[in-house]
Parts: sequence; structure tokens; C-alpha cells
Amino acid sequence: MVRSHKKIILGSNSPRRRELLGGLDVEFTVDTLTSFEEFFPEGTEAHEVPVLMAMGKSDGFHRKLEDDEILITADTVVICGEGLVLGKPHSREQAVEMLGKLSGCTHEVVTAVVVRSNERKCYFTDSTLVTFEKLEDSEIDYYLDNYRPFDKAGSYGVQEWIGYVSISSLKGSFYNVMGFPVHKVYKALKEFGALD
Amino acid sequence: MVRSHKKIILGSNSPRRRELLGGLDVEFTVDTLTSFEEFFPEGTEAHEVPVLMAMGKSDGFHRKLEDDEILITADTVVICGEGLVLGKPHSREQAVEMLGKLSGCTHEVVTAVVVRSNERKCYFTDSTLVTFEKLEDSEIDYYLDNYRPFDKAGSYGVQEWIGYVSISSLKGSFYNVMGFPVHKVYKALKEFGALD
Repeated sequence: MVRSHKKIILGSNSPRRRELLGGLDVEFTVDTLTSFEEFFPEGTEAHEVPVLMAMGKSDGFHRKLEDDEILITADTVVICGEGLVLGKPHSREQAVEMLGKLSGCTHEVVTAVVVRSNERKCYFTDSTLVTFEKLEDSEIDYYLDNYRPFDKAGSYGVQEWIGYVSISSLKGSFYNVMGFPVHKVYKALKEFGALD
Repeated sequence: MVRSHKKIILGSNSPRRRELLGGLDVEFTVDTLTSFEEFFPEGTEAHEVPVLMAMGKSDGFHRKLEDDEILITADTVVICGEGLVLGKPHSREQAVEMLGKLSGCTHEVVTAVVVRSNERKCYFTDSTLVTFEKLEDSEIDYYLDNYRPFDKAGSYGVQEWIGYVSISSLKGSFYNVMGFPVHKVYKALKEFGALD
């Protein structure tokens, strides 16, 4: 375990982000209480959406930070076609539709991360291009029935069956697609004085 | 679990390859008994090395296959600089040296996979470019002391701490770097009639 000089708080319920932050061998707690309600004005440019969301989650954190605390929040969107933003699906039908759009195409996954303490605040984004092979309807059905990816932007988890069978290529960070760009989080924690 | 029409045998001791094949939701057994001794003639072109190795493991399998069996073997090499092939390190010193070569550079990971039954045999390769951030000596020491990656080509595991903190970008398949190009293995299993 790497010694941390600060108390790190992860403001995210995503088990993947928890796994990635844990993989840095640092201790942290999870606290997702925020007054922020996910919303962005119509017409917001696609790449700006995750920044607004991650900022909102950070700014809406339910209490003032202590001086030795660092809060990390994040948001991921899938952008396909002409700036079409795919978030989490609201139904099975919507998930089928999303995976149909991704099938046989290359899409972009953008994650924004906000790191803040009482002294400073910064955000960064990371973008990865993901190419899916053509998915058969039976494969989409199998995946939705067995993995139920309804908590995931774009209706898929890169680290699950569908990522194994159908992602032929990535350009960028794999972990950005899985949860957040953990190499940039590591760097930010060093800049914030949390790690040597 | 996906129903398989054949008995799939994985001829590899790698826990990562086991995890990837398992992630396809198929049943398989592991059997690595082979008479092949890992060796390639000096002057072999770098990209040919994993093909020779994976072929050798397959051809040297310790018994004749049954008609309903499919054998999968694989080999991975890391190619950096001018065709320099990095396999598994033989000592801590060699691991330090390898990670020093990879630090701050882009290298190529090539995996060859051989799939065969009594009726057919095929091989395929996959190549991924991996970009490492500059590693500090203390980071190399931390990684080697805590993760002991001595069973891994190039002395690193993309799915471990070092992959989290220092890989800024990939071009190609992530799973190819982790163990083998599982999307191509899935396709081959379909072509061999093992999966619908």
C-alpha cells in the first residue's frame, strides 16, 4: 500500500472506479452524497457534458472538505455519430438501441474528472476511440440478459463479455473506458501532494 | 454460460489467458503438457517469434486430440526499439533493465494464437502499440517488489499497478496485451464450430 498524505474521497458509486482507484494501492473512502441533480442545458456540446456533470457532483458535495481531504468526482459519456451523447439507458429497449448504434462502428468515450481540496481544484478529460465489431442480435440479447449493463454509459462494460467478444481496437486509455483515466488521477494525486 | 459443441483445451499456464477465455462464458480445461522446448533460431524476425512459439506448443502437445477437441496455444512478445524482443525476465536486474527500456516510450506487443482440431489448424496474430509514461526508479522498484512480474513478457502486467499509473495510451486491443486477442479467439471458436 502506497502511503497517502491526504484523505482521499471518491465521490462515485461506480464499482469500476473503485477498483481502479484501489489499484493505485492507496486508501480512500467513498462518499457520493451530493445535492447535484444530473442535468445539462439542451445544446451543450457533447464533450462539455461530462465536465459539467463531474463539476456539478464536486460542487454539490454535501459538506465542506477538511483541509487534509481530496475529493474526486467523475462522469463518462459515450459519443457516437454526430455528437450524439449516450448516457445510461433507461430501459432494455433503450439499451438494445444503443448497442445497435455502437455495433460495427467506432465511438468516442469521454471521461471528465474533477479533483479538489480546499486549496485547489482542477479538472481534466480523456478521450478514447473504441471500435466494435458487428454485433448479432442474439449477442446483444445474450449480453443484456446476462450482464444487465443498465448502470453503464452506452449500455456496455468494456471489461465484460461484450468487450471480450466485440472490441477489436482501442485508441487511447483502456481504463478511461472502464471508469476513468487512472494514470491521470495518479498524476493529479501527486500534484495535490497526496502521494510522493 | 454459452453452450459449446466441442471440448476446448487451453494449452497455457497464464492466469490472464484463463481469465480471458473464461470471460467468453465457455467451459474449457487447461492442459499445458507439451514436448516443445521454447527456442527460436537466432536472427528470427521479431514478429515471427511468437508464431514459432505458439506453433511449437501446439505441435508438441503431449497426445493426439480427440475428434471433438480444440486446442488453443499462444505466445506473447514485447518488441521495442529496433526489433528487440523482450520475453520473460530471468532476474530482477533484467526486469529493471526491461522496464527502463519501456519507460517513456511506445512499444509493440505481439501475440500469436494457434487453434487446432483434428480437422483444421489456423493461427493469427494481433499487435498493440503501448505508450508508457516516464517511470521513476522508485516506481520501478515499488512495482517489482510488490507485484513480482517475473512470469510476464516485458516484465509488466497491463492489468496491474504499473499499467494503472503509467500507460497513457494504447492503439489496438487491450486484451491482446493482457494475454491474447480474445475477440479473435471468440471468432476462431465460432469458425471451428465450437460456438453458435
